[in-house]
Amino acid sequence: MSRKLIYLDNAKTTQIDPSVFAEMKKYSEKLYAAPSSTEYGHSFGLRAREAVETARETIAKKINAEPSEIVFTSGEIENDNLAIKGACFAHDLKDGKNHIITTKIERKPILDIFKMLEGMGCYKTSYAEVDRQGVLNLTEFEKSLTNSTLLVAVQHANQEIGTIQDIEKIGEICRKRGIMLYVDASQSFTKVPIDVKRMNVDLMSLSSDKINGPKGVAALYVRSGIRLQRLFEGGEGGEIRPSGIPNVPGIMGFARAVEIADEKNNEHMRKMRDYLIENLLKIPNTRLNGAKGEKRLPSNVNVSFKFIEGESLLMHLDSKGIAATTGSACFSSNLQASHVILALGLKHEDAHGSLRLTLSKFNTMAEMTRVVASAKKMVEKLRKISPFGADNAGSDVNY
Amino acid sequence: MSRKLIYLDNAKTTQIDPSVFAEMKKYSEKLYAAPSSTEYGHSFGLRAREAVETARETIAKKINAEPSEIVFTSGEIENDNLAIKGACFAHDLKDGKNHIITTKIERKPILDIFKMLEGMGCYKTSYAEVDRQGVLNLTEFEKSLTNSTLLVAVQHANQEIGTIQDIEKIGEICRKRGIMLYVDASQSFTKVPIDVKRMNVDLMSLSSDKINGPKGVAALYVRSGIRLQRLFEGGEGGEIRPSGIPNVPGIMGFARAVEIADEKNNEHMRKMRDYLIENLLKIPNTRLNGAKGEKRLPSNVNVSFKFIEGESLLMHLDSKGIAATTGSACFSSNLQASHVILALGLKHEDAHGSLRLTLSKFNTMAEMTRVVASAKKMVEKLRKISPFGADNAGSDVNY
Repeated sequence: MSRKLIYLDNAKTTQIDPSVFAEMKKYSEKLYAAPSSTEYGHSFGLRAREAVETARETIAKKINAEPSEIVFTSGEIENDNLAIKGACFAHDLKDGKNHIITTKIERKPILDIFKMLEGMGCYKTSYAEVDRQGVLNLTEFEKSLTNSTLLVAVQHANQEIGTIQDIEKIGEICRKRGIMLYVDASQSFTKVPIDVKRMNVDLMSLSSDKINGPKGVAALYVRSGIRLQRLFEGGEGGEIRPSGIPNVPGIMGFARAVEIADEKNNEHMRKMRDYLIENLLKIPNTRLNGAKGEKRLPSNVNVSFKFIEGESLLMHLDSKGIAATTGSACFSSNLQASHVILALGLKHEDAHGSLRLTLSKFNTMAEMTRVVASAKKMVEKLRKISPFGADNAGSDVNY
Repeated sequence: MSRKLIYLDNAKTTQIDPSVFAEMKKYSEKLYAAPSSTEYGHSFGLRAREAVETARETIAKKINAEPSEIVFTSGEIENDNLAIKGACFAHDLKDGKNHIITTKIERKPILDIFKMLEGMGCYKTSYAEVDRQGVLNLTEFEKSLTNSTLLVAVQHANQEIGTIQDIEKIGEICRKRGIMLYVDASQSFTKVPIDVKRMNVDLMSLSSDKINGPKGVAALYVRSGIRLQRLFEGGEGGEIRPSGIPNVPGIMGFARAVEIADEKNNEHMRKMRDYLIENLLKIPNTRLNGAKGEKRLPSNVNVSFKFIEGESLLMHLDSKGIAATTGSACFSSNLQASHVILALGLKHEDAHGSLRLTLSKFNTMAEMTRVVASAKKMVEKLRKISPFGADNAGSDVNY
């Protein structure tokens, strides 16, 4: 590409930060040994172990956890599986607790895990509703909890529309009933303050590749006392997640990414987000998906353009060097419209015309100006050739 | 450390090759998008996907497999679990095939998986014996196969003593009886020629971090037609190993490591190995553990010094900047002597006095000279203060 790419798919994955990569280099080329236990092994391995322990402290501190409560894994999907299946399988169903709840707008892997557990025949599942902005209805949610509820899985922030849930209230409701709470914080980590103690969280998924850290590594917070059944055998000394040779460069890079993720970056993203929302909404027949202000991730913009097929819009943006995504069915591998957009009570056409732009600290205001100009032009052009007709493009009904 | 480290723990993990790291840099800082499917997504993601496909081809070609038979995972332990548990759980036990066999000298994670399956009550397990050099007795092995045998798990080369098994013969025996064969090739990959078609292998574990590739990534060869039950839910289109955001930099680095692993490196390691073996055996009361010549990994040396506690020897070597390991009980996290050394029919004291030196292409002959001199000096010194008495040190009985 001759033109500089404008990358707005940061909710999927991010560019690595150079200082993160420098840390990985150190542990790949110099301190490359596998960590030894504290009690034996050559001193080279002991130094690798000490390094991993400092990484554990850095990540624990960011969410007010204890270092011993941080388990390193290979990514978000492993976190989801280890947390939900691990907690269910470690629990003896004889006490009658076999009911698990999640929301209708969770990431697909979590919904898949619920479906799999449902299919086993010994678990009952429920899917909590959200309002028009994607916020969980807490009164309804609390009513759905029963004496047989074992686990609740609620995301901190949504992957498509950026809506932030009130985890503190959800945690309070769950804890007082003795229900385990798994929070997928893969989108919110370092972007929204997290305090697992105050929030009464039992299990939490923390991503590295979403915060300019390395791919192939993640962390699962497992509150002291929570029992999980391992997905992998082969560890020493009862590890929850045996790794054999731990991914030390990945772990050290992840910790570095956490260290440098600061409020200044979030403020920068918030400004770009608000600029995009304000200016994209000036295009007629455009609606914002998700909440405004404090209830929205600093990094997320999601709008629907009426009379537009998102796939076409994306292709045109792509040709201008702008990488984004859509909730359109044609864009998904299973040819289904975004389950998140539909769960808000919106129509298939809203999903089809949706555009998700997700930011990182590396984006600039200059890029945002170009994105708004391109989007405006493309939407106008596409509406002119839309089968729904250009005539409709003027009416603002339902938008 | 002021002195340059002599790293001889390469069977555990290796230093990354600079050209591997350069490849990771490219896919971390420039082509950092998550791979899209071939049919949708922005072109940035499509380029990441194309890259992963070339990596798959490189790795497949090295073992004469098809690219579609390569599954990327997070490491060896995941490979072991996905292959063995995945194959067992995907199989309907109603046909009476519930017998699984491995060897007494496999890596501990594999033995742990067998123990776990045994504990489920529906699988029968056997552990094949090896001879004094660690070679599987094929006649006995074949006799132990029954009509109910479902799966055989045999390593290609041993992690401690470097003995190479005749996988081609084992594969022939298994295939003609319709028994699945899982081969842990984590130690042998790129060091010993592998042809999965000729060898009749169904599942094979391939390591990256053992061949100067990145940590946190590995590949599992899954022969077309072999069904595995997933350990993780959440994939698209029936993936065996959903990864969400694939570790593209890791995958690309791994492929690069495979590309540059050549016979010249193996020849270099073989020379150092033979120098070490020849000269360490000149120390009185020293025995070689494992086979000589073609039946031994180019990178492995394992000797036992009588009247010596390996832990003390290691500490002394460590103080001289030499990183090695031992099969001594005091060195292991579970305080048990090496199960490999004991399976050879040797005594606990042989395990206690054992020293494993494992090589990579980065080691030099100059280092080997220093290692031999240091080992000789240390062994003499330790024998003088040994509780067994210096008097015994002269006798060569049993050695």
